[in-house]
Amino acid sequence: MALLVAGLLATGSASAGAPAPAHPALLIKAADVPTLKQSLGQYPLLDKSYRALQKTADKALASPIAVPVPKDPAGGYTHEQHTRNYYALQAAGICFQMTKDGKYARFVRDMLLEYSKLIPGLKNHPEAKSSSPGRLFHQALNDANWLVYSAQGYDAVYETLTPAEHKQIEDGAFRPLCNYFTQDLKSWFDLVHNHGVWAAAGVGMVGYAIHDQKLINLAVHGSAGNDKSGFLAQLNGLFSPDGYYTEGPYYSRYALSPFFMFAQAIDNNQPELHIFEYRGSILKKALNSSLQLTNTDGRYYPLNDALKEKDWTTQELIGAISIAAQHYGVDKTLLGLAQQQGKVLVAPGGLAVAKAVQEASKNLQPYQRQSVLYTDGPTGTEGGLAVLRAGAQDAQTSLIFKYTGHGLSHGHYDKLGIVLYDRGREVLQDYGAVRFLNVEAKEGGRYLPETKTWASQTVAHNTLVVDEASDFGGKEEVAEKNAGQAWFADIRNANAQVVSAKANSAYPGVQLQRTVALVLDSLSGKPLVLDVFRVQAGAPHQYDLPWYYQGQLISTSFKYDSFATSRQTVGLKNGYQHLWREAISQPVRTPGVATLTWLNGPQFYSLSTATDTATHLVLARIGATDPNFNLRPEPALLVREKAQNKVFVSVLESHGEFNPTSEVATGSRSNVARVAVLFDSPEATVVEVQLRHGGTYRLAVANQDAAPTKAHEAIVAGQSLRWQGPYQLRHIGH
Amino acid sequence: MALLVAGLLATGSASAGAPAPAHPALLIKAADVPTLKQSLGQYPLLDKSYRALQKTADKALASPIAVPVPKDPAGGYTHEQHTRNYYALQAAGICFQMTKDGKYARFVRDMLLEYSKLIPGLKNHPEAKSSSPGRLFHQALNDANWLVYSAQGYDAVYETLTPAEHKQIEDGAFRPLCNYFTQDLKSWFDLVHNHGVWAAAGVGMVGYAIHDQKLINLAVHGSAGNDKSGFLAQLNGLFSPDGYYTEGPYYSRYALSPFFMFAQAIDNNQPELHIFEYRGSILKKALNSSLQLTNTDGRYYPLNDALKEKDWTTQELIGAISIAAQHYGVDKTLLGLAQQQGKVLVAPGGLAVAKAVQEASKNLQPYQRQSVLYTDGPTGTEGGLAVLRAGAQDAQTSLIFKYTGHGLSHGHYDKLGIVLYDRGREVLQDYGAVRFLNVEAKEGGRYLPETKTWASQTVAHNTLVVDEASDFGGKEEVAEKNAGQAWFADIRNANAQVVSAKANSAYPGVQLQRTVALVLDSLSGKPLVLDVFRVQAGAPHQYDLPWYYQGQLISTSFKYDSFATSRQTVGLKNGYQHLWREAISQPVRTPGVATLTWLNGPQFYSLSTATDTATHLVLARIGATDPNFNLRPEPALLVREKAQNKVFVSVLESHGEFNPTSEVATGSRSNVARVAVLFDSPEATVVEVQLRHGGTYRLAVANQDAAPTKAHEAIVAGQSLRWQGPYQLRHIGH
Repeated sequence: MALLVAGLLATGSASAGAPAPAHPALLIKAADVPTLKQSLGQYPLLDKSYRALQKTADKALASPIAVPVPKDPAGGYTHEQHTRNYYALQAAGICFQMTKDGKYARFVRDMLLEYSKLIPGLKNHPEAKSSSPGRLFHQALNDANWLVYSAQGYDAVYETLTPAEHKQIEDGAFRPLCNYFTQDLKSWFDLVHNHGVWAAAGVGMVGYAIHDQKLINLAVHGSAGNDKSGFLAQLNGLFSPDGYYTEGPYYSRYALSPFFMFAQAIDNNQPELHIFEYRGSILKKALNSSLQLTNTDGRYYPLNDALKEKDWTTQELIGAISIAAQHYGVDKTLLGLAQQQGKVLVAPGGLAVAKAVQEASKNLQPYQRQSVLYTDGPTGTEGGLAVLRAGAQDAQTSLIFKYTGHGLSHGHYDKLGIVLYDRGREVLQDYGAVRFLNVEAKEGGRYLPETKTWASQTVAHNTLVVDEASDFGGKEEVAEKNAGQAWFADIRNANAQVVSAKANSAYPGVQLQRTVALVLDSLSGKPLVLDVFRVQAGAPHQYDLPWYYQGQLISTSFKYDSFATSRQTVGLKNGYQHLWREAISQPVRTPGVATLTWLNGPQFYSLSTATDTATHLVLARIGATDPNFNLRPEPALLVREKAQNKVFVSVLESHGEFNPTSEVATGSRSNVARVAVLFDSPEATVVEVQLRHGGTYRLAVANQDAAPTKAHEAIVAGQSLRWQGPYQLRHIGH
Repeated sequence: MALLVAGLLATGSASAGAPAPAHPALLIKAADVPTLKQSLGQYPLLDKSYRALQKTADKALASPIAVPVPKDPAGGYTHEQHTRNYYALQAAGICFQMTKDGKYARFVRDMLLEYSKLIPGLKNHPEAKSSSPGRLFHQALNDANWLVYSAQGYDAVYETLTPAEHKQIEDGAFRPLCNYFTQDLKSWFDLVHNHGVWAAAGVGMVGYAIHDQKLINLAVHGSAGNDKSGFLAQLNGLFSPDGYYTEGPYYSRYALSPFFMFAQAIDNNQPELHIFEYRGSILKKALNSSLQLTNTDGRYYPLNDALKEKDWTTQELIGAISIAAQHYGVDKTLLGLAQQQGKVLVAPGGLAVAKAVQEASKNLQPYQRQSVLYTDGPTGTEGGLAVLRAGAQDAQTSLIFKYTGHGLSHGHYDKLGIVLYDRGREVLQDYGAVRFLNVEAKEGGRYLPETKTWASQTVAHNTLVVDEASDFGGKEEVAEKNAGQAWFADIRNANAQVVSAKANSAYPGVQLQRTVALVLDSLSGKPLVLDVFRVQAGAPHQYDLPWYYQGQLISTSFKYDSFATSRQTVGLKNGYQHLWREAISQPVRTPGVATLTWLNGPQFYSLSTATDTATHLVLARIGATDPNFNLRPEPALLVREKAQNKVFVSVLESHGEFNPTSEVATGSRSNVARVAVLFDSPEATVVEVQLRHGGTYRLAVANQDAAPTKAHEAIVAGQSLRWQGPYQLRHIGH
């Protein structure tokens, strides 16, 4: 063993002109190791994290090395084995640094030597279906994951290897994949997109590990070396100035991992780049915004392509939180999360977090989710995302309002869509994506076709659909060029928050403006959401406003004809083919209000919408045209009207209580008596919601001039109503 | 205050010849009070329970007394107010005993005086819809609840009242309802049924409180005084000798409450009856069997009419557990439950439990759910219920096999049905009942029509349906006369438990025998369920064997035609009208195996069934003919075959793992290679299940003679297979 460890700097590869600091130098530096070793036994979270790595490494060491010829898709044997391998390489590397036990170094060496024999002969993976096929895995993305982790293993044992071993591993295992990425898949490698971040991190971390400045430059500055692509371009292009990740919360989680890991590697090797301070410490803002875009139970809001199971305990965030602690200081409100994750990075940042958790003991400060307004786009001019929140912790209500840019290839056609959570539960859902992650039997765990045909379509969201088509014609290249537009927002008053946004290019010749208010009703103490969706067009259209309520229908205030014994789809394309038509209502003779009440867990909810003599209501259920049973059979209410100009005004309320243990069920009926548009002109719109108990809410919205000083007037019931600024929300006596 | 309390025995009513012990004498005796008072401050659970009663009482005292004219159904104001009132009366009574603060006594007096004015003028409740209408509530059952709790309040403050007040309250509030029950609703009062238990408890507890031996006798010995009805008849008739409650687990919970409370009142007043030792301490057995019929998460198995939300923390069990502790000693394995319930009865038994919880501190013994075989019927000859269990605590698998009697008015036509739970989750569900408890907007919280048209029908269960009809023609009076028949059972080997039962009168001319085995597979360590459903008839029939799997369909081994854009019901009546036909498969040319795989939480499950050239498979979904949206849209697989004699052989397996946090999804494919009937004769049936990995299971079952000494022979592939006894289960090499 001593033989292997001795005099190692001398064996450093001279393959490129890069500076050669002592190894390891990716997530930890050689100089970090003594402190980490001394800290063991002091901080349970660090101990547990290290034990987990030991377990991973020892389990791998106890089995014969298996580097199979790639064959299976995700969920299948070869896929899972190569995944296990790269985690084992990383773990064994850390174990070697912490113990200097040569068995770990030999394991890394032997496995990488196997890879060096396998990889040069590989062609595209037999299960590859995308335009960026992998070699070890069905997609290049997973090969990039492999590089990121395997590079760490190599880096950790670097100094134990002979020059011949260096050459064999670098030329056989690492360079072929790096060359494949940067040459054959050059346009993919240059993507400003989560794949591109992983690719850059993989190539760059290999670059540092094997001392190849050319690879490092490609990774940091892009293949043209001009920062139009590569890591800096990704830091510039994927986040808004306030840290919103353009692909949405689910992918922010996934991208933060390579962003933070590669940044750490850069900082360890080229501290002069000040990467953690880059763009106003954009990585800090990115982490904060990612965490804010989780629900009270830690689950990521499933905007764009997203799996709802994913929460903030996910592996990818652990490293980001540890690394952020090293560079930005420990965020005390994240210690509870660190404890819940049960892991930190075995690295200086992870040590800091583990120490802080130990010191805080049981008095951990809770993480605070608050109302936030994010912009989207590199300069913050491509619309944005509002999260209105009321109430504290588990009892919090969150209204998410999306008027961002499209969000790249995983974006949905959901402009001006809203989603509502209450006390941890989805009340108005975003469907997320149609995918069973890594489940081999569901098309190898890939995104299923219904992600495109259903989940990404406009009708799958709680937003307006014009003429049964998706916004931007369902065309990504068009959608990418047209973001939503923030109109005004006021989140200063926790009991009455209002946001308004526009989308004037989603449908040709149609102007959309949506204004939402989250109000805590002073009488019931429960949340009310007011929603004013104004549409103006040059010609008549059919408008559908769907509401994907989650729960069991309890009652409706309106009559309907039910298709109880024979059922057809609501439409034929653009997602409508996936909706069963369960019931329809005919328009009523006098304008009024239609209310649908449902039960979700212990809570009743009602949606009430103003109706007129042209309003049809469609009760629908997801799941049609789904021969492979990929969809969940969840319900929706579509409010449908043929009109040229129209203001849809709706209110969503939480009411009553259902407690089967104590057998209490109270307040199962809506408290809304009337919902109406009082005034509508090009300049302004005024709506009101009358409650049975608790007075009336009246919301006035400016449509043309949102300046704070602008005076507005509307005529309501013959009276002049005046206000100044973009909106006025009044609660009138009860 | 002293004035009110002083010299009270002298004021005892002499209205009847009953012995007059000091009050209180229902759930607690006067002599218990000093010890209870001294114990406050020592045992947190007792303190918390008492504080909760104080809170209930003080909240009621702080509001004006409201005794409204009955008007609303469950969930409505008057219903909920009268319910709140009786709990307040009980709570205030206990608070008075514990504090001797006259405000509590005055509250009870004043409220009961209000009731004494209201009740005499009441006719049937305006929302009454059943044959046993209530006066204060829509059904007499709730009036009985009112008597049980109000009697306790009255009893507790009895000695503070003047003779005139006694007379007013007894004649105005209590006697009218008791007379109404025992005279107008005599046949209902005499029911051997949970309603009857509540009615007897109400009338009997009032009898003790007001010293009316006549009421006591009616309650204990029935209206004819001959023990054909009344409390003793209920103790005799509703439980099997081993304590199984004939209406099923959900109603056992509900009936145990009056059973234990009234028994306590009897014991406090007539200890010479030795009611807790009655029928071999049947109440102890009843409580044990009720608790055993909960799932690992404490939820009651939803057999017969049942709401799935109900678990063992339910209010009704708290009193039963406390009272049982007083008479049978503290069961240490129930202390964790007591802590979870967070309450005990403020009574000697509750004190004992609270003390034991305090002493056990954090080292609470877990409750053990084990394999159990219950008989049904007063003499244990009306079939029974088997629960086969494997694994420990949260990871336990439970297979419930029901071959009981019908179970009275809430019984389902589910003879030989099975239900499967695994690791806390429903894998093969029983639908339960269609009801939204106390939700006013859902028909006043009553059982909805779909309980009869869907949930109670045979096709709604995991058991065989002959000719699309329910067993016993769906007629309660026929079903009540015909129980299932236990055939044999062997639960000695925890890794391989086998139970067989028959039903030869469910369908005229059709003999049914079902044999189920719960096996822990030695290779995977996961459960396998083998199921052999043998049907013999005098003529051809259509047989459907439905499987209500819970979760998301992942894959099928068979091809099917999907009704993806237009959908009809599976049938027209007997529950079939509530099933959508989603897809059908045509018979295959060569016998084989059909497998359906689904995902439920983190676990994959597969059902594999042997198919032949006549087997059709129907993929169905609940929810058709449901214009009011009362049903849950859950899936089923129906295995359908037209035949005269047929052996359905199926295997249900748990396999793989789905973990979205760690992004691991492995083993998503079934491990079953072949399922086949090897031999079938009037004497015996032999089936086998071949696994891809892990060998073959072969199960041989005796059909005609289940004697342990009987030798059997079958010819399998030309070889003679011999065994002795009712079955042989072999696991053949792997």
